[in-house]
Amino acid sequence: MIIVLRRGATEQDVLQIEEAIKAMGLTAHISRGVERTIIGAIGDERKIDPESFEGLPIVEKVLRILSPFRLVSREFQKEDTVISVGGKTVGGKALALFAGPCSVEGHEMMVGIGGRVASAGATFLRGGAFKPRTSPYAFQGMGEEGLKCLVEAREATGLPVATELMDPRDLDLVARYADVIQIGARNMQNFRLLTEVGKLDKPVILKRGMSATVQEWLMSAEYIASEGNQKIILCERGIRTYETATRNTFDVSAIPVVKSLSHLPVIADPSHAAGKAGLVEPLAGAAIAAGADGLMIEVHQQPERALSDGPQSLKPDAFAAMVVRLRRVAEAVGRTL
Amino acid sequence: MIIVLRRGATEQDVLQIEEAIKAMGLTAHISRGVERTIIGAIGDERKIDPESFEGLPIVEKVLRILSPFRLVSREFQKEDTVISVGGKTVGGKALALFAGPCSVEGHEMMVGIGGRVASAGATFLRGGAFKPRTSPYAFQGMGEEGLKCLVEAREATGLPVATELMDPRDLDLVARYADVIQIGARNMQNFRLLTEVGKLDKPVILKRGMSATVQEWLMSAEYIASEGNQKIILCERGIRTYETATRNTFDVSAIPVVKSLSHLPVIADPSHAAGKAGLVEPLAGAAIAAGADGLMIEVHQQPERALSDGPQSLKPDAFAAMVVRLRRVAEAVGRTL
Amino acid sequence: MIIVLRRGATEQDVLQIEEAIKAMGLTAHISRGVERTIIGAIGDERKIDPESFEGLPIVEKVLRILSPFRLVSREFQKEDTVISVGGKTVGGKALALFAGPCSVEGHEMMVGIGGRVASAGATFLRGGAFKPRTSPYAFQGMGEEGLKCLVEAREATGLPVATELMDPRDLDLVARYADVIQIGARNMQNFRLLTEVGKLDKPVILKRGMSATVQEWLMSAEYIASEGNQKIILCERGIRTYETATRNTFDVSAIPVVKSLSHLPVIADPSHAAGKAGLVEPLAGAAIAAGADGLMIEVHQQPERALSDGPQSLKPDAFAAMVVRLRRVAEAVGRTL
Amino acid sequence: MIIVLRRGATEQDVLQIEEAIKAMGLTAHISRGVERTIIGAIGDERKIDPESFEGLPIVEKVLRILSPFRLVSREFQKEDTVISVGGKTVGGKALALFAGPCSVEGHEMMVGIGGRVASAGATFLRGGAFKPRTSPYAFQGMGEEGLKCLVEAREATGLPVATELMDPRDLDLVARYADVIQIGARNMQNFRLLTEVGKLDKPVILKRGMSATVQEWLMSAEYIASEGNQKIILCERGIRTYETATRNTFDVSAIPVVKSLSHLPVIADPSHAAGKAGLVEPLAGAAIAAGADGLMIEVHQQPERALSDGPQSLKPDAFAAMVVRLRRVAEAVGRTL
Repeated sequence: MIIVLRRGATEQDVLQIEEAIKAMGLTAHISRGVERTIIGAIGDERKIDPESFEGLPIVEKVLRILSPFRLVSREFQKEDTVISVGGKTVGGKALALFAGPCSVEGHEMMVGIGGRVASAGATFLRGGAFKPRTSPYAFQGMGEEGLKCLVEAREATGLPVATELMDPRDLDLVARYADVIQIGARNMQNFRLLTEVGKLDKPVILKRGMSATVQEWLMSAEYIASEGNQKIILCERGIRTYETATRNTFDVSAIPVVKSLSHLPVIADPSHAAGKAGLVEPLAGAAIAAGADGLMIEVHQQPERALSDGPQSLKPDAFAAMVVRLRRVAEAVGRTL
Repeated sequence: MIIVLRRGATEQDVLQIEEAIKAMGLTAHISRGVERTIIGAIGDERKIDPESFEGLPIVEKVLRILSPFRLVSREFQKEDTVISVGGKTVGGKALALFAGPCSVEGHEMMVGIGGRVASAGATFLRGGAFKPRTSPYAFQGMGEEGLKCLVEAREATGLPVATELMDPRDLDLVARYADVIQIGARNMQNFRLLTEVGKLDKPVILKRGMSATVQEWLMSAEYIASEGNQKIILCERGIRTYETATRNTFDVSAIPVVKSLSHLPVIADPSHAAGKAGLVEPLAGAAIAAGADGLMIEVHQQPERALSDGPQSLKPDAFAAMVVRLRRVAEAVGRTL
Repeated sequence: MIIVLRRGATEQDVLQIEEAIKAMGLTAHISRGVERTIIGAIGDERKIDPESFEGLPIVEKVLRILSPFRLVSREFQKEDTVISVGGKTVGGKALALFAGPCSVEGHEMMVGIGGRVASAGATFLRGGAFKPRTSPYAFQGMGEEGLKCLVEAREATGLPVATELMDPRDLDLVARYADVIQIGARNMQNFRLLTEVGKLDKPVILKRGMSATVQEWLMSAEYIASEGNQKIILCERGIRTYETATRNTFDVSAIPVVKSLSHLPVIADPSHAAGKAGLVEPLAGAAIAAGADGLMIEVHQQPERALSDGPQSLKPDAFAAMVVRLRRVAEAVGRTL
Repeated sequence: MIIVLRRGATEQDVLQIEEAIKAMGLTAHISRGVERTIIGAIGDERKIDPESFEGLPIVEKVLRILSPFRLVSREFQKEDTVISVGGKTVGGKALALFAGPCSVEGHEMMVGIGGRVASAGATFLRGGAFKPRTSPYAFQGMGEEGLKCLVEAREATGLPVATELMDPRDLDLVARYADVIQIGARNMQNFRLLTEVGKLDKPVILKRGMSATVQEWLMSAEYIASEGNQKIILCERGIRTYETATRNTFDVSAIPVVKSLSHLPVIADPSHAAGKAGLVEPLAGAAIAAGADGLMIEVHQQPERALSDGPQSLKPDAFAAMVVRLRRVAEAVGRTL
């Protein structure tokens, strides 16, 4: 950590900070420049809170040298993490393909979509039983009944199922049915929820928060990992910017950036990023070309009647045709789909 | 709601939408323009999900006419809401002044700060016992012991106390001690938590999410109101933008905008918005001049030793001197402090 | 255009607006809803300034139905525009590949890089002679001497050359040497400059402004087209967001969005978007998979000694190897490179 | 400047950088930490381009210690700059008040508004003769005729006049008529234009670009100052964010931030920031309370008929009444209006 002092700092000021650094078990290294004195705190800076120094009037700025996350970092583990569940994997050469409706809407529907996406090449079935909705008056999901539909579809198709958890009080319930637990964008910094799923031995999809930096996203992954659960799948789903032509701005750069910083697999959700069915394929192709380890795609038999997120859902036929084309992109970058 | 069809829509397309609108209990009104046909759905559009129409390939866009929130809107209630608790009010001519440390750090500390801010003019004492922290390795708050410190400080000062709730499982515990419950920015769309505090008969401070639009913020307030709790205090605390000179960008315009759309009181938290003690006073003055109904200010005896948010905390003396100056601004806009 | 009146609008108010619409040569269409009266102005709304109505106190909001641009829209011209210059094309099945250094730094350097990128598959040579630099103390470009270097490199390689124009006073000079003129991101709304290049019969690359919406970008293209020059190449180069892990956020979605709204070709500049050489290839691949009509890539023999933008430049060898791999992605989506 | 090397940097790497630093006339200071080696370049780092080092593969990041601007910095000049023109000042205890229409629309109009705003307390008259408009089909300003109207209004009222310059080719023309030259937000990084106004002996209002950081804004001021013109008035006019409730997000914090970094006066333009007349007063009050040195307010006799920016213009009566109320806010913070 580097502490830059304001112009005019005295020897007394420098001494005070030097002692504080030593008290934290680190070594202080002083550089006296023409215009500024700079103090380096050498050692494991993760032990230090930069705020301890920023509070001092004589301090101009404090700069971290190391990333604040550790277990999820590429420095901690060089090799890519590969997660296996129900005979499928996330993180290797083969791309993972999560597909299904935004919301579970019934048994017949889930078994129907499940069969369609399975035969088109999906490796996981997704569907929400608990839905975070902006409006209290909107459909909030089928709850446990929805979880049962997912299990039925898993039995029919053999695909492991992924579903969202919104509330720590539902943890046991959701964990009983789901193979993969999803933490939604709005809960990326619901630290209690992260701590709870960190205690499970089950893969967790951690969606990036709508305005989370890459670093904050990885810090949230660190919350899960620090409780013992290393089976974390990061999911880029678009960030909030000034642009209104798309629902969110799909941050495709985040994929290679995260893969350079972390060993965790990263998948992309072009459906939520774009908010429009017509943009799903170009963004899915972009994600694959940029190095994503998988995709999450919304599929619905009748998007115009979907209880949520209809405009961005693909019909099963369109999904199947898209997978054929995306397979060529995957192969062009040395992956399989 | 207005549904704009793509160029080339047929009579058949128009008929289909007209029938769907009627089936929802509304009236359809057709305008055939030179380049586009436009269909108005007349009636209570809150019943309709715009997505039902956006999913149709022939639909170009769907525009809401009415705001999606109702109970918290100025149309629903013309007069300003004034909330009373423990002999203090939020929302009237007198500005509410919440002050105290970011985190509760001990009994002596809370009673000490409590006394200082009370004598300087604070009307509420704030302090976090459960802290949402970006890093799992940072101080997470004192928990129940912290709540007890708050109560002790309330007894010593007579000030009602406000503290954050992060987890629905802590609701009974926090509600037992706190006079006002705060929902933090990261939980603004933790809909389960909103639903739970909506069932209480206790004022709730709803902080604006870091990238929430004014409309989303009011929709989250609607979640609370729709469960029966109308005692909602909105708190602007800065939004995330590209600018890095301040921790967040304090959206001072949101204050008059929200007050025109809603009857709820709006307070401002310049400490979190700025992230630097030196900016607290100019932003607090700006908030008052823009029509805020109160302030939330972080105060700490030794900011450089605070366990969280030190850089933005004021010392008690500086706080007291600032209140004297802000009082003049309040009076200039017809308020008291 | 749709004009939504505030609750409580009187017959008199409606009449006043109806007459204003008629005076503009359009037809007014009135819908009286339960809570709001809505007036449609039917006809060519591009003639009307929405502000004419937004200024009236009784008007709540004004919504455009049609896009404000016309000549560059897909409705105006269904087929993709293909631009030919110096034997090369931009906009067809074959991807255009602009490559070269950020700044022209000398004759030998330009001829050297020109040869290397030409043999690797580049179809245009780029290089800046006039450089917009954030600091007045930074290298500002070689000026006319730089233009001469470009021409020399064109003679040596046969590649048409593209270079930036910053000032209307340099127009004749730059147009004399360059085959393609670039308008940089910072000048996307330098309307005088747009008007001037609109009078030329030469292709213009219009970079997207750092915080321009897709609509504003297309409006700037409309400025050029409205003066008679239809040879416009749009270039996505990243937008400004809160994320600091990359220099800009590459808005890959803008590529398919623009291609659906406009007939103009769209290329991508992953070098400026990312700001780091290591991200150029994944973003270039993403752009191709998303439907871009070409790429602009910074190449420098010694990036660490570049007078500008070194960190994002590729060495010629790395560039050549990248082109081989990107060719596979291009073929996977039915294009050639 | 601090250069952080990647883990695994060798003695050879360190030596290479050390020599490069020496070659630039600075001193290198090496700190070998547990996980990283850090090199400080001590001396006037403004001479160094951080990119020189960022291009090296062994460099992880480069951090500036000093601000890149100098002449406009508070370190260069401790005392506030006060600018005098035509008997009025900008930058002292008395607030400057620029008022007038967005566009000059005629002689009678300008003399009329001029008289009204002068008697209400305005100290400068504003009005655009050259207008940057998003659409090529919108009113582009009256040109020289508009400048003549401004001069006529100046003669009638005694108020110095401020108007926008968009094109270096219009410099002599505009300078002949105007007392204060305005550089609009879209031209904040039109470096050629900045260089030209830097050669004048006339005050320049430099509006903040729509997505400019405070640092970029001050760098643009440095462009002007480095040519010799120190009479620069900074103007905050709102930045682009994801929020759509206001046209721009008025960054009130930028006012105290800029005043701490620079000696230049800062005024605020709440009219453009908000885009709605009803928000002008709360934002103007906020700006004053936050320490602004003046305001720029749009005033129009008939906002609903304004040729541009009608929705945000105040009528002369409303303006006069507002000034009376704002005067109280100014006095509350020790200023006069």
